[in-house]
Amino acid sequence: MIEYFPRPDTDMTETLYDFRSDNVGGAAPEILEAIIAANAGTAAPYGDDDYTRRMNERFAAVFEHPVQVFALSSGTGSNSIALAATANAYGAIYCHETAHINVYECGAPEFYTGAKLVGLPGPGFKLEPAALEEALVLAGRGNPTRVQPFALNLTQPTDFGTLYSPSELAALCEVAHRHGLRVHMDGARFANAVAALGCPPADLTWRCGVDVLSLGATKNGAINAEAVVVFDPDLARDIPYRMKRGGQVLSKARFVSAQLERYVADDRWIERARRANAHAAALAREFAALPGVSLVAPVEINMLFLRMPDAAVAALDRGPFRYYKLGRDVRLVCRHDQEPEGVESLVRCVREATLPTR
Amino acid sequence: MIEYFPRPDTDMTETLYDFRSDNVGGAAPEILEAIIAANAGTAAPYGDDDYTRRMNERFAAVFEHPVQVFALSSGTGSNSIALAATANAYGAIYCHETAHINVYECGAPEFYTGAKLVGLPGPGFKLEPAALEEALVLAGRGNPTRVQPFALNLTQPTDFGTLYSPSELAALCEVAHRHGLRVHMDGARFANAVAALGCPPADLTWRCGVDVLSLGATKNGAINAEAVVVFDPDLARDIPYRMKRGGQVLSKARFVSAQLERYVADDRWIERARRANAHAAALAREFAALPGVSLVAPVEINMLFLRMPDAAVAALDRGPFRYYKLGRDVRLVCRHDQEPEGVESLVRCVREATLPTR
Amino acid sequence: MIEYFPRPDTDMTETLYDFRSDNVGGAAPEILEAIIAANAGTAAPYGDDDYTRRMNERFAAVFEHPVQVFALSSGTGSNSIALAATANAYGAIYCHETAHINVYECGAPEFYTGAKLVGLPGPGFKLEPAALEEALVLAGRGNPTRVQPFALNLTQPTDFGTLYSPSELAALCEVAHRHGLRVHMDGARFANAVAALGCPPADLTWRCGVDVLSLGATKNGAINAEAVVVFDPDLARDIPYRMKRGGQVLSKARFVSAQLERYVADDRWIERARRANAHAAALAREFAALPGVSLVAPVEINMLFLRMPDAAVAALDRGPFRYYKLGRDVRLVCRHDQEPEGVESLVRCVREATLPTR
Amino acid sequence: MIEYFPRPDTDMTETLYDFRSDNVGGAAPEILEAIIAANAGTAAPYGDDDYTRRMNERFAAVFEHPVQVFALSSGTGSNSIALAATANAYGAIYCHETAHINVYECGAPEFYTGAKLVGLPGPGFKLEPAALEEALVLAGRGNPTRVQPFALNLTQPTDFGTLYSPSELAALCEVAHRHGLRVHMDGARFANAVAALGCPPADLTWRCGVDVLSLGATKNGAINAEAVVVFDPDLARDIPYRMKRGGQVLSKARFVSAQLERYVADDRWIERARRANAHAAALAREFAALPGVSLVAPVEINMLFLRMPDAAVAALDRGPFRYYKLGRDVRLVCRHDQEPEGVESLVRCVREATLPTR
Repeated sequence: MIEYFPRPDTDMTETLYDFRSDNVGGAAPEILEAIIAANAGTAAPYGDDDYTRRMNERFAAVFEHPVQVFALSSGTGSNSIALAATANAYGAIYCHETAHINVYECGAPEFYTGAKLVGLPGPGFKLEPAALEEALVLAGRGNPTRVQPFALNLTQPTDFGTLYSPSELAALCEVAHRHGLRVHMDGARFANAVAALGCPPADLTWRCGVDVLSLGATKNGAINAEAVVVFDPDLARDIPYRMKRGGQVLSKARFVSAQLERYVADDRWIERARRANAHAAALAREFAALPGVSLVAPVEINMLFLRMPDAAVAALDRGPFRYYKLGRDVRLVCRHDQEPEGVESLVRCVREATLPTR
Repeated sequence: MIEYFPRPDTDMTETLYDFRSDNVGGAAPEILEAIIAANAGTAAPYGDDDYTRRMNERFAAVFEHPVQVFALSSGTGSNSIALAATANAYGAIYCHETAHINVYECGAPEFYTGAKLVGLPGPGFKLEPAALEEALVLAGRGNPTRVQPFALNLTQPTDFGTLYSPSELAALCEVAHRHGLRVHMDGARFANAVAALGCPPADLTWRCGVDVLSLGATKNGAINAEAVVVFDPDLARDIPYRMKRGGQVLSKARFVSAQLERYVADDRWIERARRANAHAAALAREFAALPGVSLVAPVEINMLFLRMPDAAVAALDRGPFRYYKLGRDVRLVCRHDQEPEGVESLVRCVREATLPTR
Repeated sequence: MIEYFPRPDTDMTETLYDFRSDNVGGAAPEILEAIIAANAGTAAPYGDDDYTRRMNERFAAVFEHPVQVFALSSGTGSNSIALAATANAYGAIYCHETAHINVYECGAPEFYTGAKLVGLPGPGFKLEPAALEEALVLAGRGNPTRVQPFALNLTQPTDFGTLYSPSELAALCEVAHRHGLRVHMDGARFANAVAALGCPPADLTWRCGVDVLSLGATKNGAINAEAVVVFDPDLARDIPYRMKRGGQVLSKARFVSAQLERYVADDRWIERARRANAHAAALAREFAALPGVSLVAPVEINMLFLRMPDAAVAALDRGPFRYYKLGRDVRLVCRHDQEPEGVESLVRCVREATLPTR
Repeated sequence: MIEYFPRPDTDMTETLYDFRSDNVGGAAPEILEAIIAANAGTAAPYGDDDYTRRMNERFAAVFEHPVQVFALSSGTGSNSIALAATANAYGAIYCHETAHINVYECGAPEFYTGAKLVGLPGPGFKLEPAALEEALVLAGRGNPTRVQPFALNLTQPTDFGTLYSPSELAALCEVAHRHGLRVHMDGARFANAVAALGCPPADLTWRCGVDVLSLGATKNGAINAEAVVVFDPDLARDIPYRMKRGGQVLSKARFVSAQLERYVADDRWIERARRANAHAAALAREFAALPGVSLVAPVEINMLFLRMPDAAVAALDRGPFRYYKLGRDVRLVCRHDQEPEGVESLVRCVREATLPTR
């Protein structure tokens, strides 16, 4: 009898209602169709193909700006490559202390850039221009004993589901540029931000001063498809080498480029994100009425961070739900195709555990 | 009118017969089916899902050995992660001077391992045990001014389409192990080796002493699906961290795991490779009869490296063919679904350019 | 006329009283004698010489413990090599947020280790066991998205001149070891700690649980001489390779080993440190009586961090003094050979600027 | 009884005649005087001092060119920093396959630059312009799968004691510059080259096209003193940060700057090198007359590489000599203060072992 080395965790496939993450979901129909359509004929490998060129054109139209787009298969790779394109060799990247790149990428941005991440505090899990300004003034520019800042990372939406307004983004980019930093936006859930803020992608990126965007499609209906969208051609020059050196170049890139081209080709990406956001808003409204249940962060996209009584957590754990805990907090992430009965069932479960029995 | 930053090369999509690489081809039907089948329900992200567990079980059965398998999307990433798992912090990886990792990965293995690659010469683009032995004896083990060897890389098949026999592999692994090195096999075209040598996968890997295998599926019908197959549990321990740190962990890993599980689930992977090999053998037979056309390397899998008269090269360039040149040499790679008329057309083109007109 | 590229800052050599740092001072007489004595005959290069062996024996005696000592020429190199000896390949080093390695080494520890530095707050510029415990509990051990802790850095004395007691050190080491971390002590001013705490070196290091010490001699009478003192032979094994790879191996190591051997050969190193500490204590007593002058940190060794009225700072700047500012604060560092008239002059200057004129 | 962890090798201090290396010797009298003279007053740390400024001026005069000079304590550090100043992030450094940086620095240049070293063959242990040209033409400039060349390393003299003439240097630099590479000269024994070729330092460096020089003083009478001499200010900009990040900045830099300033302040450095070269030439003349003794490389500086009968090697090993073997070859390195009786004794020893007894 052949055994494989066991992995520590096991997947409870019988679980019905899954609130773990938006990346537990599947692919949107048009994405699968794009993959199948790309499976015709031959195409040059490594991104030198027509699917990739069409993706580039499509993104230029959607972002109303000349862009160079690189197709990758992981968000961590996408963030790391984008940051590396802005790097000096002895530097610092400024970010919120809770930023995804600072907490959940196992040091990948440091590996790719050689930089130190400087995490700053800030309310609502967001950076503030004044705090950034102060940190940069004290950074020791020109002092060889100090790492030299080169990039600002803005996570939009944040890992706690909060949003920067365009004017907040612009104010932060202004500080960064004045101090000689480039601005990278980690848009793993960029669609949710666009849907929630109701403004065109350009208004959240280059019009505010963003130099390079990591746009994630995987969490919103694509299959391991992430785009590095470069708004400044100077930053694009090194990327093909850095990608290859990081093992991030895809041999059959067309299958990812075709997904990304299709992803932004119409409004379905925004609609899916809007539906996911709406599920979270509905949950938030229900929980607002429950005693002992409070929000750790305002619910602006498709994520909720809740503090609730131990009895409610225990009830959730007994129920047909899958979700993650962050320390004592409950994190719930909604997908566009979240089952309505799952949402209802989850609300009922928490309500029954928190409301006094009559 | 919106423009994107132009890429240097353009894809001639009107080209009919494509001999550039096996990765210009599409996906096999059962691979697409596996992707579509994986698109049901939710699954844990980052490889902690049932598709990944089934992939692991399947590979254990196919390789007749306990294994830990990691699903990645690029061959360069797969090689780099596998080598990094064997690395010390001041080391050397021994390989043939023409090895893919030494020439065509833009320094990725060095980036991931921190090591120096030591390329050795050897006839037929293959390493020889005696030369490896001599190099290791002279490597300065224990001398801090010298990098310390930790891994041997064997590319099977080689980048020039030649094959190591099981006994050749065993002899090289014996030298490596005796000197304290781990053995990594770069099997980007592993299927072609299995098909050509007609022996089970185990006979080409752990039975010879291979510690970790990069098994490529992309060139033989999969979509950006590569497996790191670890035969020694000690080497598997660090890999999840190293993968994350390299941006190699796939958020929706199930879509790659499902491909890999399906890839080796029956004999179609071998049959496709056998057909591709047969196309190349047929071409080789035809070229053998042509004056002025000679093989740079014996044709053992699906690749041909040819030296031919300038007139023949010029004729190819005028024809409806796509292929790569390596310096003065012509490289032709056959896919399992190479169009018979393309093969015939290509032979006719070279024949007419080389045979004296009567 | 030949010009060289100008450096930004200039040195005011006419300055009389120098409170900038302990490394602005010269070498102790016995250190110069040791250098001259080492200049006889030939000796093997790269540390394979009798001076190095005698240094090792001397440190073993002074520390009452088997040790392996490595002679280097920079403190940053010493810290980086010591930390690298404890490193995994995807890790985190825990330290106080104000630690020298975190602020003033331009990312060298990250460069050598590949790790992320996690800076924790703590009163008195010192770490607290409970805060360390909580951080390690939340560090995500075993979760591949998180960097994995491998080392605790304790700076003794801290960069703000505060001291850990032996029991404080022991409590922190206990937490670290329980979580699988190794403990590195940055002892750039180790002599000042030994002098101030009045306990043998062993009581501040291995008896508390310190695994590896960077002992600085440069700031206390040596010339670019720093020792990595390893208390656990397992940690010593890689160091020669890592040193060479970092360009930290000295070709004529005997001249540094001879200094280090002589440095700890009698009590002069402690006596010098005691004198330097006493100068700072005297300054602190004087300043305590002045209105508007307050200490940023308690004065436990040879450093003072003061907040004082703008008029007093301006007076200092007009006077014959050299010192550094940290933001708004005045930093004064005393050497063992600080001129008494300089100390008196400085006190008088601040007193006149702060006391009300009668 | 306290033990220290034993080092593997032991130093036979009773040995009389030492031909191991030029770095087994001591310091020149004027170098010790310079160290002692620098021990007066205080000076800014980290190279921001007047000794360093005077060193810079002195080198500008000696090299007849504006320069920026950085004082370091190790040759490996010096080479690595100089190369890193020229680096891109995905690159290749071209060098002779026997270059010191390629063989004896444990991967330090790769660590500092992230680059791959491409070792080329060449007669006399020297690179040839045509071979370099061909390698660069085939390097795949612009192809992201290939590392991109950025630097040429010339070791002058080579590790086998051979010399490039100024015109040979110029021809190689011309090829390098035409392909966009910067040129680094590893001058660990630069004095021996200047002495042997009899031309001013400028004629061996910037006049030929060298962009940055690692000038070693340690092997020729200094104590751990090496200079990075930068001829192009663009290359100097990053160096302070890269040095700090590598732990290469010396806290009391004045003691190294003072040595380097004194080292080139008059002709003694050249005279010492000339004497050392003359000892080697004398040995070569004697050995030329002995049957079975042959030179592996022409003797152009202070090193001899000899092949001799086993009986002669055995006789050497029994005698009062210290030297190194490289494989089967005997390496002898002469110092300026090589004892004449040692030279005579060594010649007699080999002669008696090789000449037929009458």
